[in-house]
Amino acid sequence: MAQNSGVIYLGQNKVEVQSIDFPTMKNPAGKDIKHGVILKVVATNICGSDQHMVRGRTTAPAGMVLGHEITGEIIEAGDDVEYLKVGDLVTVPFNVACGRCRTCREQQTGVCLNVNPGRAGGAYGYVDMGGWVGGQAEYVLVPYADFNLIKFPDKAQAMSKIRDLTMLSDILPTGFHGAVSAGVGVGSIVYVAGAGPVGLAAAASAQILGAAVVMIGDMNQERLKHAGSVGFTPIDLTRSENLGELIAQIVGKPEVDCAVDAVGFEARAQGKNGEEAPATVLNSLMSIVRAAGAIGIPGLYVTEDPGAKDDAGKTGNLKMRIGLGWAKSHRFYTGQTPVLRYNRQLMQAILYDRLPIAKIVNATVIPLDQASKGYADFDSGAAKKFVLDPHGLLGSS
Amino acid sequence: MAQNSGVIYLGQNKVEVQSIDFPTMKNPAGKDIKHGVILKVVATNICGSDQHMVRGRTTAPAGMVLGHEITGEIIEAGDDVEYLKVGDLVTVPFNVACGRCRTCREQQTGVCLNVNPGRAGGAYGYVDMGGWVGGQAEYVLVPYADFNLIKFPDKAQAMSKIRDLTMLSDILPTGFHGAVSAGVGVGSIVYVAGAGPVGLAAAASAQILGAAVVMIGDMNQERLKHAGSVGFTPIDLTRSENLGELIAQIVGKPEVDCAVDAVGFEARAQGKNGEEAPATVLNSLMSIVRAAGAIGIPGLYVTEDPGAKDDAGKTGNLKMRIGLGWAKSHRFYTGQTPVLRYNRQLMQAILYDRLPIAKIVNATVIPLDQASKGYADFDSGAAKKFVLDPHGLLGSS
Amino acid sequence: MAQNSGVIYLGQNKVEVQSIDFPTMKNPAGKDIKHGVILKVVATNICGSDQHMVRGRTTAPAGMVLGHEITGEIIEAGDDVEYLKVGDLVTVPFNVACGRCRTCREQQTGVCLNVNPGRAGGAYGYVDMGGWVGGQAEYVLVPYADFNLIKFPDKAQAMSKIRDLTMLSDILPTGFHGAVSAGVGVGSIVYVAGAGPVGLAAAASAQILGAAVVMIGDMNQERLKHAGSVGFTPIDLTRSENLGELIAQIVGKPEVDCAVDAVGFEARAQGKNGEEAPATVLNSLMSIVRAAGAIGIPGLYVTEDPGAKDDAGKTGNLKMRIGLGWAKSHRFYTGQTPVLRYNRQLMQAILYDRLPIAKIVNATVIPLDQASKGYADFDSGAAKKFVLDPHGLLGSS
Amino acid sequence: MAQNSGVIYLGQNKVEVQSIDFPTMKNPAGKDIKHGVILKVVATNICGSDQHMVRGRTTAPAGMVLGHEITGEIIEAGDDVEYLKVGDLVTVPFNVACGRCRTCREQQTGVCLNVNPGRAGGAYGYVDMGGWVGGQAEYVLVPYADFNLIKFPDKAQAMSKIRDLTMLSDILPTGFHGAVSAGVGVGSIVYVAGAGPVGLAAAASAQILGAAVVMIGDMNQERLKHAGSVGFTPIDLTRSENLGELIAQIVGKPEVDCAVDAVGFEARAQGKNGEEAPATVLNSLMSIVRAAGAIGIPGLYVTEDPGAKDDAGKTGNLKMRIGLGWAKSHRFYTGQTPVLRYNRQLMQAILYDRLPIAKIVNATVIPLDQASKGYADFDSGAAKKFVLDPHGLLGSS
Repeated sequence: MAQNSGVIYLGQNKVEVQSIDFPTMKNPAGKDIKHGVILKVVATNICGSDQHMVRGRTTAPAGMVLGHEITGEIIEAGDDVEYLKVGDLVTVPFNVACGRCRTCREQQTGVCLNVNPGRAGGAYGYVDMGGWVGGQAEYVLVPYADFNLIKFPDKAQAMSKIRDLTMLSDILPTGFHGAVSAGVGVGSIVYVAGAGPVGLAAAASAQILGAAVVMIGDMNQERLKHAGSVGFTPIDLTRSENLGELIAQIVGKPEVDCAVDAVGFEARAQGKNGEEAPATVLNSLMSIVRAAGAIGIPGLYVTEDPGAKDDAGKTGNLKMRIGLGWAKSHRFYTGQTPVLRYNRQLMQAILYDRLPIAKIVNATVIPLDQASKGYADFDSGAAKKFVLDPHGLLGSS
Repeated sequence: MAQNSGVIYLGQNKVEVQSIDFPTMKNPAGKDIKHGVILKVVATNICGSDQHMVRGRTTAPAGMVLGHEITGEIIEAGDDVEYLKVGDLVTVPFNVACGRCRTCREQQTGVCLNVNPGRAGGAYGYVDMGGWVGGQAEYVLVPYADFNLIKFPDKAQAMSKIRDLTMLSDILPTGFHGAVSAGVGVGSIVYVAGAGPVGLAAAASAQILGAAVVMIGDMNQERLKHAGSVGFTPIDLTRSENLGELIAQIVGKPEVDCAVDAVGFEARAQGKNGEEAPATVLNSLMSIVRAAGAIGIPGLYVTEDPGAKDDAGKTGNLKMRIGLGWAKSHRFYTGQTPVLRYNRQLMQAILYDRLPIAKIVNATVIPLDQASKGYADFDSGAAKKFVLDPHGLLGSS
Repeated sequence: MAQNSGVIYLGQNKVEVQSIDFPTMKNPAGKDIKHGVILKVVATNICGSDQHMVRGRTTAPAGMVLGHEITGEIIEAGDDVEYLKVGDLVTVPFNVACGRCRTCREQQTGVCLNVNPGRAGGAYGYVDMGGWVGGQAEYVLVPYADFNLIKFPDKAQAMSKIRDLTMLSDILPTGFHGAVSAGVGVGSIVYVAGAGPVGLAAAASAQILGAAVVMIGDMNQERLKHAGSVGFTPIDLTRSENLGELIAQIVGKPEVDCAVDAVGFEARAQGKNGEEAPATVLNSLMSIVRAAGAIGIPGLYVTEDPGAKDDAGKTGNLKMRIGLGWAKSHRFYTGQTPVLRYNRQLMQAILYDRLPIAKIVNATVIPLDQASKGYADFDSGAAKKFVLDPHGLLGSS
Repeated sequence: MAQNSGVIYLGQNKVEVQSIDFPTMKNPAGKDIKHGVILKVVATNICGSDQHMVRGRTTAPAGMVLGHEITGEIIEAGDDVEYLKVGDLVTVPFNVACGRCRTCREQQTGVCLNVNPGRAGGAYGYVDMGGWVGGQAEYVLVPYADFNLIKFPDKAQAMSKIRDLTMLSDILPTGFHGAVSAGVGVGSIVYVAGAGPVGLAAAASAQILGAAVVMIGDMNQERLKHAGSVGFTPIDLTRSENLGELIAQIVGKPEVDCAVDAVGFEARAQGKNGEEAPATVLNSLMSIVRAAGAIGIPGLYVTEDPGAKDDAGKTGNLKMRIGLGWAKSHRFYTGQTPVLRYNRQLMQAILYDRLPIAKIVNATVIPLDQASKGYADFDSGAAKKFVLDPHGLLGSS
């Protein structure tokens, strides 16, 4: 059991499964902790935000173990873990959070003040997020376990829905946060920018929140086709540079109640030969959201982008048409999702068969040692959400 | 009574009091209305947003009657005015709102859908806001009177506090909206950018909302001195280009809970010889607001700025460091204040002697025919809020 | 067109369709109004709260025209109706609201301050609600039409869904208000007390709000069977006096996240031979709602109940186990639903085929002249929602 | 240091300071804990809810160590206390909360699910609240210290304001919760029932929340006089049985925007010779709160009251005029205050000299060994809040 292996970032477009240290009850600063658990990883997904790193669009150092979407079984529990025990199957929020600081107490676990010396907010296996070892691995340490983890009430039932439940660690709450912060409610007309997994999760969230119609825009034909096949209204952005026009074709006017940016800073300009244009999604959303509406922005915008085309972009400085948003009294909600604010209720929705998120994001299980291929396929735009299966517990795809 | 005069915008840096038409019960499209009242204007203030027009930084046409901060007495009421009568003294929100559309029903009167054919949201005497005649005049028409107006319960009491109550038409609710949307509450550490009247009103609002400390930054020494004299902590932005450093000198760390942008798009870069830098306030606020905090943006950002230095700015397109805001999970609240959401409660605070806003903004009464000088003095940075007195009812200053 | 007929309350258990005055543009005080419209009633439903009156459990006077659930076509519009026109098909909230007072401005149209001299809040055809003539009639007056009414965007489409859309006037928003105020959200475990139309509407609302499971309790076997057939989990309250036990059989523990009281003061004690026990629903809900949960109370509790069994009950004074609620930090939400806060979004949900409310409440169309039989059948506990069809426009049932 | 003494409840109207065990790092079930700290108690107050026990109006067993209002210095910290250290001066919320369960994660620390096997919610030294030893003692154990405690940033500054800061453990947040849940905001007209310490704290909270006028009613003349002397408007309830009439004398109509019940179940009927009437406060508040208003109920209502006059009261079952509340669309907020939701911001307000709560509640320091006399004086209605000083650190009164 003292062996471990995980997905390592080796440099631009290069990841590899290698042998790594078995986790111990120490935090990244090397201090002993009492509140941690060690998990046998049951499922761990590849995330679009991992892609930003792998594409070299962040300052992530080579050698990092990747992975922040983790579901696992507890195999060891620290001395101050009181409400969980060995054998429990748990979902892990991607945010590392202490549960003891001001922001955690206020349900803002995305910006915990204690787990990252560099800035507010921690995560597993992510650049600038505190140095916590990633979970695309056989085993991983989770600190502050009583606070961070939610145990599935029935292990067998949970294993039978594991492809859905694995989405609780990140993309489902992230999509949900986007939808909630955009003000989606019963009867809303909703537009989601981006038909990748987070966009699909935002669309699924809008659906279960009662939206009247959920449109989802992208330029990738395979993803659009998939989005249509699971019940959303796809919008092919290569057809026009005018998003309002495309929306009017569906709902009769160039306006929506709510919009979600599930793309982030690697956005490309809409139209036939879209070049990278980092603020294009934000600006197009201001053009279509109704007056007094809100824009949820779960898509990642970074403080440092070494791959940006201009100097402003290199420091996350983008040309936003804020004058337009202001004229329409828009609200803008940014930041990492505080997963713990949403995952319990989303778990219930899955367990009671109300939210078939695996099908919606096209969950595709692959063995851990095929992670490298998974990254490549995902990067090429496959309409799939890859779930790594480090211990062969998930059955065939 | 059929005579009227008002302040006319004649071109860049040129305003003049001229004879104008006496108001009739017609909307800007010329249609008869039943819901209007004609007011004898008792007090009407010069606003910083009027200055944007007068400086030529908007597309305002010459010939407009200016003025959207109005308090007056009803001298005529339309056939469908049921709950107000001739003789009532009323406060007028600067937003023209129908009270019948979706956004008005939702308390979003800043973006009424019916009063402006060009876009959502109407105002008196303002470019692109529906063509309603301004109220820096002897008489003015107010439509949808039952919905828009609040009657002061005791006329004599109201006249004795009229220099305070006149601030209910715009800057007090606007400052309050900024503070509320920035999340100011009991115990908050607050920074307000801009020590003009809206900034002072935001600071006063933060104070009555229970803020622990209210800092207010500017580069105008007279305004800073005034801000200090009425109980706020002034920050002289000419002393450093680093706002965090200046804040740390006061509260011990370079961070606040909440921030309000009371400057808008005509911002200048902080430091000794600040050049115009339209996103500088927004970007500096992101640098100091705590993780999970909010930024209230009552300061105006426009969709068209013919006076901007670059093409992007001409369409309200600014370089925002959104990557930084995103990393801190910031929320951004923009837009015209829906005055009606706040003015009743602020009136109560004034009537019960809790909010001495006239003193805080240094209300300075001048006759209507000195409006031109008032505009010039205000533009030169006087630490005063000019109140025009068209009928000589307010007594000497 | 000057003829009219409507359903008249004649005394306990006695209603009759009689000839009534054709509506004129006057309010109940006899004053001319400019803001009203006269509707040709297309659909008007019998409501459970009408039953309270007809059973003699209120102080309703004989001779009243009943009916507050109205959908109709405008045949005449007052001089100050600007955004609606003759021919428009509209939904009417059961609350009469002025759109001009403090509470209406705050979206609290259930307690408008201007339309009822006796107390806050008005309604059509209802005791103590301002004397507005009821709408179980061929024609009816609706005041403040621009504010109160929502026009269906496509008349033909609306007529094809009219059995659903007619529920927007009361029971669908009322059930929705109950669910929202109980805190129902995605993943909630919900219990609704009462399987009559409002209970079913609350259950449907919980469903579209994303509830994980929706239980609905009653003692009427026909209604339970119907509730089960449309997708809810019925709970037969005659099986046990212990509600927690019955709930535990379904969700594994005697606790729910949220509860809705869709019964009101004519409640009967749970168990085999339930006697009337007016606080029994409220008390049983406190026993099952989780700590920190909320209870939505759309079910009617009255200030005067001449039919109550004891003196306290005659003044709406009930024995509540508030000590239990307090120990669990419960919140309680009471009152008439402000329909206008919800009906637009619920209309969208219906128009986009997300909310088949007619099927869920078993909408059953009958001619106006069979209203008396409808009242009797409904009173006997039929699992039906009766829709009156004054002009034969709805087709056969 | 192994000696300890504390206030023991010995039976009706009998408390005594006795030697008690020195705290150890064990929870009430006897299990070792890693998350606790042992405090040297610097200040600990006598609370009105202690009085309910001492008067024999609860099922509290003889032998209990009382006290749940605690401020102290850490003298020992468990192995899993990471963000506090020996020597820190901290404020302790009266609620014992784990920081790891569903309700704690949702800021509902008043009903923690893990610290009390009997029901949701724990407290120190209180009947039915989990068996945690009280803090009217020299030393006390505080579990889950990182989560529950807030450290004062500057110890010397804090000691200089310790009579204010000691109110953070209970009555200030409790009064604040009452005001917040009653909807108090800027400009509100507020009535607080009860001029004891919680009532005064609610009034102070209403004040700092911006209320226009704060009235406070009682029948105790000394308390009324004190309330008036610290800036509130006292209402002498012995003058009339009609609360509305008394209120109208002050604000011109028999109505308030918001009301707080700071009395609870031991209420007495208003008027000259008020008998105990447990629902009288709740019912009188419904009579005066405006339509669409809210009632905050921090006053305690119990599930078991052995001293009640009738059987219903013995189980916390009171005659509420819920029909009246319903007609006015009232909301009711009950339960223990989740102190941690408010104490940080209230601490800031105190530290920045905005909230002189010690003066407002008339904080009166007495040595620990005079606790018995303090209980008796408080029970007799003294207009004082007694602060026990176990180690003589607070100076003379």
